[in-house]
Order: sequence, then structure tokens, then C-alpha cells
Amino acid sequence: MIEVEKRFAIEDLYSAYGSCLDNDKLEEWLDLFVEKCVYKITPKQNVTLGLPVTLMLCENKNMLRDRIVSLRQANEYSIHTDKHLISNVCIKAEVDANIMMVEANYALFQTDNEGNGSLYSFGTYIDEVFFNKNVPKFLSKTVIVENWSIPHMLSTPI
Amino acid sequence: MIEVEKRFAIEDLYSAYGSCLDNDKLEEWLDLFVEKCVYKITPKQNVTLGLPVTLMLCENKNMLRDRIVSLRQANEYSIHTDKHLISNVCIKAEVDANIMMVEANYALFQTDNEGNGSLYSFGTYIDEVFFNKNVPKFLSKTVIVENWSIPHMLSTPI
Amino acid sequence: MIEVEKRFAIEDLYSAYGSCLDNDKLEEWLDLFVEKCVYKITPKQNVTLGLPVTLMLCENKNMLRDRIVSLRQANEYSIHTDKHLISNVCIKAEVDANIMMVEANYALFQTDNEGNGSLYSFGTYIDEVFFNKNVPKFLSKTVIVENWSIPHMLSTPI
Repeated sequence: MIEVEKRFAIEDLYSAYGSCLDNDKLEEWLDLFVEKCVYKITPKQNVTLGLPVTLMLCENKNMLRDRIVSLRQANEYSIHTDKHLISNVCIKAEVDANIMMVEANYALFQTDNEGNGSLYSFGTYIDEVFFNKNVPKFLSKTVIVENWSIPHMLSTPI
Repeated sequence: MIEVEKRFAIEDLYSAYGSCLDNDKLEEWLDLFVEKCVYKITPKQNVTLGLPVTLMLCENKNMLRDRIVSLRQANEYSIHTDKHLISNVCIKAEVDANIMMVEANYALFQTDNEGNGSLYSFGTYIDEVFFNKNVPKFLSKTVIVENWSIPHMLSTPI
Repeated sequence: MIEVEKRFAIEDLYSAYGSCLDNDKLEEWLDLFVEKCVYKITPKQNVTLGLPVTLMLCENKNMLRDRIVSLRQANEYSIHTDKHLISNVCIKAEVDANIMMVEANYALFQTDNEGNGSLYSFGTYIDEVFFNKNVPKFLSKTVIVENWSIPHMLSTPI
């Protein structure tokens, strides 16, 4: 049995993950990852076919930081806001005393600058969560985009 | 660490909130609020711009009761049923021993009288939950409607 | 107060339920039911009107097994993948020491073979969960389809 506190801490990690992205707190979002993290977004089709191509790949936290700087300073993309519903959070395995494999499903709704909302993406997070004492962070996070023909260009993280 | 029992009681409060609205048990829904409650629905844009205008504002439980009576007896609105998916329930702070700040995300799907379903609204609840002994109720509930250009008129609570 | 372990086990049961269907692990999905199970899918309208007609009815596990064999070997249906978001999981009552009434809401998103995703169905599970020692399984599962005019033919379980 996973300790109650760890289970709650993991649930809160996913809530914080969604909240940071939804409130454009991208720098706080970075804090949810360890330095040696891997973050990638992969279309479901490539997972099924065994193809390695990703939609986004950051192989350490500096690459993630760079991505955020780009979003803040350089990139142009359609203005939108995000809303994450994350459910089915489930601890799949304990790799060791400090690392857990966790999966969760997400639905990401977006709103344009006229206030029109729509379903943008849905899929599954397949993650490794590392506990430093009682504080969990993402060691790796793989976003499997189920609707891989997403309606418009990917800009911000999912 | 928030007590386990309180955390579960809060999760159950949100489930009851959705269930009462989805099953048209509006009088039971009222029971989830304390007498001195505030309930409001605000478009996200107004929050962002610092504007005070709301879509619905009830500054105490009698105003909420009045609203329910109106829905039952006077209002005409398009017949529909609701289904709430509420996730990312997260205790943000303990104000004191009896009051907690809680946030959650919602997606509200509606069905018309032909059985056609669609996404109606999604957003965030920003709430104060008051514990009377072990029973939590809403002291204040603010619904931030992310898709503020909602598809059709708001009638029932979100 | 329901034991913490039982509550978590129930949450995990719903996550496993979604995960098995979403990953086409239909045989593992069967393992989540007891032998004397009942599984049915009912349109909300029929529940409201008190009509007994269902969209799918399996009155024991062999009927469920047969259904899976049909899906694997005989049926032709439009290729799609599923993604379940299950939330508002709530224990409504303890029938006895081993059986609990549990409800949850679901949204089921589907993706076609071009990668286009859409909302397929949403509704409520009204279930009896049986604990054999600490392992919960479904004794009965009733899927109330809220958008009973679902966009296209029902093939796989919801």
C-alpha cells in the first residue's frame, strides 16, 4: 500500500501542473520538474507504430527553460487560454523508494480571445515522479496525444 | 498535512454538488451552502480585466433560495440536463481551523430534449469551504467561466 | 467513515476500468467483474421514463465474455480509440460489509483513424462494488448515457 501522504501529494502535483499552465504561470510550472527531467509530447499514432518522432522533446530542464523563454519572448502563436481536466490519476508501480510510475488522463479545453471554448486535446500522461523527501516532482513526463490530428498548432505545453 | 477525513469530505462535497445539479435536486443543492454564503458566476474576462460584473450573484442563502424558486415557478428556459465533471480538486490554503480555500476545475456538458449532448461550459471553482464539525459546506463559491462566450443563455447554476 | 484503503481501491478500480477499455485490453477489463455480474448501458431517457430497454445488457460474466469474443472475431464497426475521463467518484452507501454502492461521472472521447478526436458520450456509472478481501470488482455496473442520441453506433463498452 502506497502511503496516504504520498498519494495525496501526487494528486496535488497534477492539480498544480494544470493550474500553472492554465494560469500562465510557466515559471512555476518549471518548478514541478527535477533538473534531469525529460518532457515530451508524442502523438498516439507514433506510439502505436513504434515511431520515435515527437511533437515536443525536452531532454533536460534547461531545454524546458529555453522553451518557456521562447514562449515569453519570441514565439508568435494564437492567443488562447487553457483549462486542464486531469482525472484517472493512478500509481502504476513503485520503481524504488523514491520513484513512482504514474498515469493520468487529461482533457485540455481552450478558449480564444473572443471567449469561444472548445476541446483542443485529450490523452494520457505517462510519468515518472521522483520524491525528494515528501515533495514529488516530475522526473519524466510523456504526453500521449490521443487526437493526434489536433485542431491547430501546438504552442504551449499540454 | 490536511487530515485525511477532511480531504475526503471535501471531495465528496464536490461530488454532491455536481450530483444535485445534474439530477435537478436544487433544494438539496441549497443544503450544501451555509446561510451567510456568497455564490457568483463570473466570466473569466472580467476577472482578467478586474471588472466586477457577474453573470449571477447571490450574496446570501435567501438570494439563492429565491433563485431556485424562480427556476421552479417562473423562469422559462430551454429544457436541458447537465452533467458535471469536476476534477483537480485542490486545497489551496487553510484560512483557519474551520475554513479552507479550495479550487477545482469543471466541465459542464448539456443534453437537449432530443438527447443531443455538447460541451456547454468549462472553468474553475474558487471556493471557501466551512467545516461545521466534520461537515463541510460552501461559505463562498465563485465560478470562473473560462469560455465566457457561452453557447446559449445561462439559466441553472453551474 | 469508509476505510481509506477501500476508498483508494475503488478509485483505482475506476482508473483500471478506463485504462483497460482505452488500451483495448478487453480481456483484462473482464477481470474487473465478478462472475455473477450485471452490465448494462441505458439511455438516460429510458431511466427518466421508467422504460426497461437497454442499449447493451449482459446478465452474467459469460455474456460479457461472449460480447468480447464478438468484438474480437465477428463484429465490424468503425475503427476508433477511446479515452475515458472518470471523475466525481463517490461512495453512496455501504450495502453490507463487502458491497458498496458507488457512482461516478464519465466523459468518453473518441479518435478516428485519421486522428480526429471528439466527444462521444458522457453520463454516469451507477455501480455495486464487491470486495473479496481487499480487492474490489464490479458486481453490477449500469451506464446511464446522458446524451442518449449518441453520434454513431455503439460497439465497444462505455
